[in-house]
Amino acid sequence: MPENTLIERVIIDRVRPEIDAGRFPIKRTVGEKVKVRADILTDGHDALSGLLLFRHERSARWRAAHLQGFANDKWKASFKVTELGRYVYTVCAWLDRFKSWRRDLVKRLGAGQDVAVDLLTGAALVEEALTRATDPNRTWLADCAHALRSNQSPENRARLALNPALLARMERCLPDRAQMTFYPKTLAVVVDPMKARFSAWYEMFPRSCSPTPGVHGTFSDCEARLPYIADMGFDVLYLPPIHPIGITHRKGRNNSPVCEPGDPGSPWAIGAADGGHTAVHPELGTLDDFRRFVGRARSHGLDIAMDLAFQCSPDHPYVREHPEWFRQRPDGSIQYAENPPKKYEDIYPLHFECAERRALMDELKRVVLFWVEQGIRIFRVDNPHTKPFTFWEWLIGEVKRSHPEVIFLAEAFTRPKVMYRLAKLGFSQSYTYFAWRNAAWEIKKYFTELSQTEVAEFFRPNLWPNTPDILTEHLQAGGPAAFVGRLILAATLGANYGIYGPAFELCEDRPRSPGSEEYLNSEKFEFGSWDLDSPGSLKDLIARVNRIRRENPALHGDRSLRFHPVDNEQLICYSKHTPDFSNVILTVVNLDPHHTHSGWLDLPLPELGLDTEPFQVHDLLSEARYQWYSPRNFIELNPQVMPAHIFRVRKKIRTEHDFDYFM
Amino acid sequence: MPENTLIERVIIDRVRPEIDAGRFPIKRTVGEKVKVRADILTDGHDALSGLLLFRHERSARWRAAHLQGFANDKWKASFKVTELGRYVYTVCAWLDRFKSWRRDLVKRLGAGQDVAVDLLTGAALVEEALTRATDPNRTWLADCAHALRSNQSPENRARLALNPALLARMERCLPDRAQMTFYPKTLAVVVDPMKARFSAWYEMFPRSCSPTPGVHGTFSDCEARLPYIADMGFDVLYLPPIHPIGITHRKGRNNSPVCEPGDPGSPWAIGAADGGHTAVHPELGTLDDFRRFVGRARSHGLDIAMDLAFQCSPDHPYVREHPEWFRQRPDGSIQYAENPPKKYEDIYPLHFECAERRALMDELKRVVLFWVEQGIRIFRVDNPHTKPFTFWEWLIGEVKRSHPEVIFLAEAFTRPKVMYRLAKLGFSQSYTYFAWRNAAWEIKKYFTELSQTEVAEFFRPNLWPNTPDILTEHLQAGGPAAFVGRLILAATLGANYGIYGPAFELCEDRPRSPGSEEYLNSEKFEFGSWDLDSPGSLKDLIARVNRIRRENPALHGDRSLRFHPVDNEQLICYSKHTPDFSNVILTVVNLDPHHTHSGWLDLPLPELGLDTEPFQVHDLLSEARYQWYSPRNFIELNPQVMPAHIFRVRKKIRTEHDFDYFM
Repeated sequence: MPENTLIERVIIDRVRPEIDAGRFPIKRTVGEKVKVRADILTDGHDALSGLLLFRHERSARWRAAHLQGFANDKWKASFKVTELGRYVYTVCAWLDRFKSWRRDLVKRLGAGQDVAVDLLTGAALVEEALTRATDPNRTWLADCAHALRSNQSPENRARLALNPALLARMERCLPDRAQMTFYPKTLAVVVDPMKARFSAWYEMFPRSCSPTPGVHGTFSDCEARLPYIADMGFDVLYLPPIHPIGITHRKGRNNSPVCEPGDPGSPWAIGAADGGHTAVHPELGTLDDFRRFVGRARSHGLDIAMDLAFQCSPDHPYVREHPEWFRQRPDGSIQYAENPPKKYEDIYPLHFECAERRALMDELKRVVLFWVEQGIRIFRVDNPHTKPFTFWEWLIGEVKRSHPEVIFLAEAFTRPKVMYRLAKLGFSQSYTYFAWRNAAWEIKKYFTELSQTEVAEFFRPNLWPNTPDILTEHLQAGGPAAFVGRLILAATLGANYGIYGPAFELCEDRPRSPGSEEYLNSEKFEFGSWDLDSPGSLKDLIARVNRIRRENPALHGDRSLRFHPVDNEQLICYSKHTPDFSNVILTVVNLDPHHTHSGWLDLPLPELGLDTEPFQVHDLLSEARYQWYSPRNFIELNPQVMPAHIFRVRKKIRTEHDFDYFM
Repeated sequence: MPENTLIERVIIDRVRPEIDAGRFPIKRTVGEKVKVRADILTDGHDALSGLLLFRHERSARWRAAHLQGFANDKWKASFKVTELGRYVYTVCAWLDRFKSWRRDLVKRLGAGQDVAVDLLTGAALVEEALTRATDPNRTWLADCAHALRSNQSPENRARLALNPALLARMERCLPDRAQMTFYPKTLAVVVDPMKARFSAWYEMFPRSCSPTPGVHGTFSDCEARLPYIADMGFDVLYLPPIHPIGITHRKGRNNSPVCEPGDPGSPWAIGAADGGHTAVHPELGTLDDFRRFVGRARSHGLDIAMDLAFQCSPDHPYVREHPEWFRQRPDGSIQYAENPPKKYEDIYPLHFECAERRALMDELKRVVLFWVEQGIRIFRVDNPHTKPFTFWEWLIGEVKRSHPEVIFLAEAFTRPKVMYRLAKLGFSQSYTYFAWRNAAWEIKKYFTELSQTEVAEFFRPNLWPNTPDILTEHLQAGGPAAFVGRLILAATLGANYGIYGPAFELCEDRPRSPGSEEYLNSEKFEFGSWDLDSPGSLKDLIARVNRIRRENPALHGDRSLRFHPVDNEQLICYSKHTPDFSNVILTVVNLDPHHTHSGWLDLPLPELGLDTEPFQVHDLLSEARYQWYSPRNFIELNPQVMPAHIFRVRKKIRTEHDFDYFM
């Protein structure tokens, strides 16, 4: 034990948030607060003081906020992150001998004790501190110490000793670093753009955008589709891979192992004679066309999200130019993808354990930066759980070091710990199990874990009721009411959510075969053709839901999510609110798409920022307003009319004449 | 990122038990198991294997147990600690390519696929492994690889590939260290003697042991008292300080600031002309007398626990010889103990922040080792929370390095985080809030925290219904039934418990003043005089309770403690059991010392090791036996008769003729 730690009397422990003992950063978006807590202890009865220290990684200067003790050796303070990139934070604390002395002096005086010797102790403490003070503080403190030692009456000197101005000036004389105890770790915050926290995604196959059925859509056709998507209120448009598609072992319609002439193949079988991951499929247009399309999308408020699927068709240029990046079978052939006994011979996985992995990784980084240069800020990463964790941590770290604005969404539908690990090592958003959580109890359990535990510090859920791979049994069997219910759940449970359209808004519910979650005639293998003006389209409802989301900041995050009891398990009720309760949204959904259900809600009014009754709930879907007089209220929802209420909760701010005004 | 971590594909995370990211050891006693769990993940679908590695700190050789995956990326294994001192453990894991290959081969064969190329892959894996094998394993594996590559029929080769003997031999060829992923931390276990986990303490003032009232007791008198204590079944006899007592500012009876001639003073005011912390109060006897007493106690199965109160009376030799070890006031006097506005002028605290702290600490270590040399193995440490944490970590570490059998009990009644910290840094046992937990809900909450959370890994509770400082309101008001109830709670909730006697067994309940927890005429300031043969003495009951504890291994630890519902909040019901359920104890206590209460218990039978009904409960206090036919059973307890049942739960092992036999 080194000599100088022999008397370390301050313990700093359990600094939170802290992920895996500081191994991983937490996540915030620009403008958010980081609320830090720590346990700070000492032996005996001495008073403590402490600081929360923080800085942007680029700034050399630490900033500080005084920690406030609040209960049982727990302390807290917070700071706001205002710039993209990484912040670091830590905590320090020290024995505050002046604060201890002042507290004891008050007690001694209260007991009528002689404090002559104590006043000398205080004078010595002030004299010690003033050596660290700068003028005019120093002069003031010197005068004060002098007076404490003077022959003024003890009453006068005691009054001076307890002068709050003395306490304030002493607080400004921070002790020497050597007298402080520092938490041994520096913790990190990754600060992302707002869209990492709050975004509405629309997924669409560009090749299905042609106005003429059976004709390959182009980026120009996609441009024409932009107003339709923007009018629905989405702000991210995600495209499956836009690269040349392989021919060898190309899949046919409905995943047939043999394709017919004219079948376009799966866009995830990337690479052909026309190029690989940095090329554009010629039938969609040119790279210039793509860049123009990205610009047009932005003018509609839409960011284009690219698919990063790091795998190759047998025709990808890498296969010829870098056979060392693939695994060879004992017979000399290249190992195709498989999940025995299933074989995916149209796909060659990259072999991250090859000897030339450094070159491979650099090339993949080049791919990402290439698209960043084309104006892409958002990547949806295909199956990240089938590539090494360390690769992602390296790649995301490298990209975000120069481009902290870039967002990565992890498409990993795998075991929970693997999904969490991917989020910890850098993914900005993550797909979830939402699609398969249909009962109230399982929704509550899952989303409580995602929003109320440490998971919320690093894992940002992105909720998808459907994807090109996922047409759930619930959607297959529930009719349009199921689509509406799942849309509202996704959009209000999750600050980030998305749909795969037009299949979603047109309530496409035909599976390839009974028991399958694959779409019949899936756009993964052929051109889709959609009647966007179909009278059953949910586009107007989607537009309304997305407007409600935009206009209500309570829905811009997930951490305030709380579930409330309902006495009918087919109904689910939950709220979100802004920190100051100026915006409170209460959502009630009938989870059964077939039957009307009713029940009684029990609302914890203080948790909704309500201190008075009655209060008003304003259904932002129907515009109906209700006055509620107690925490217990009746709800009835007919899914054929509308399976949900999205209430804005308004508290009464005043009563004037005959009217109540609600905030 | 170093080149070799680029492809680290195995993640080892959340190894448990692990206290504060490995900063502190967990605790066990000789013969206990350490059950270790870890999350082990990889990308993709490869199979994993892993080892739990462990060794005694003195042994250079790591031992290993294969980890078993059991759910959701969680793995487990365990090891037994058989020697005092420190063990260390950690975890390693690797991609098991042979296991993956074999699993996939089974699927391929099941789907009727051609496996010719796969058999070559397998042969290569075997060839790679045999380079690490020793004969005869190597020869066997070489033959096997040869056969896999041979022109035998594919059926024959597949049968060979799936031969369990091949799997077993491949498992014996552990991969190179370089191919394993190691958990980056080594975690520690402190292994204490059994008494650290299971002990019954009796506290007694030696000076009160004289058969003649008002005469100073001696170690000889204490020897005469040993059979009385041993007959009650205690195994630790704890003595308040036995050192010379100061004269300056000596406290009088009932804590009077002025003492009368003949007042013996508080034994915690340590040090006088006759010596300090390594001296024996002359009126008790000599050091030789003490050593003889310690030996006699041991022959009665009693370990003597010494009080370590690191503080001095103004007459302590240290004050004269080492004034630098004390804090000076501005007037040159030595700072006495205080808790403003209260002053304790008979006590000088040691100043651990003094410049000569190294010498001070070495001296205090010398004090402990001095008493270890006199045969002392157990120390009860007075107010450890008023000395620096780092001092205790150093002192206990130093002592236990050469004397791992020594036990330290922390007498810290302070804030919970401070109590836990002291336990983490080395105290073997800790006083608790038990004395003030009287209602069922607060007992359940507190002891669930102590036994079912991480706290159980480092904090061993020692439960005291009374101490010389603590005569609770509950005991003052509840009469003998309160004493009996609290005794049974302490002895069955806590594997470690103690009483301060003879005050306890004689149900002494008079406080110094109303509202005070101090005893009237406290032995802290005067000689006590007790009628040990008083008909109201609880000594026989205590003997019975201690015998029940000894005979029932379920009561030898705290981690199996579980509370069970009762529909009357004045009753509390809980169980403890051995890992194999061969011994199951169910305790029910009426917490109200004044009224009979009845209620229905709901017992989770599988948690009590019961799979059949009826079962028998045998009250070890009354010897009554009941046959219970369902999980729901009626209890009625009259506190004036006996406020508790301590049931041994016996399951029916067979029915023969007209009789049921119970285990």
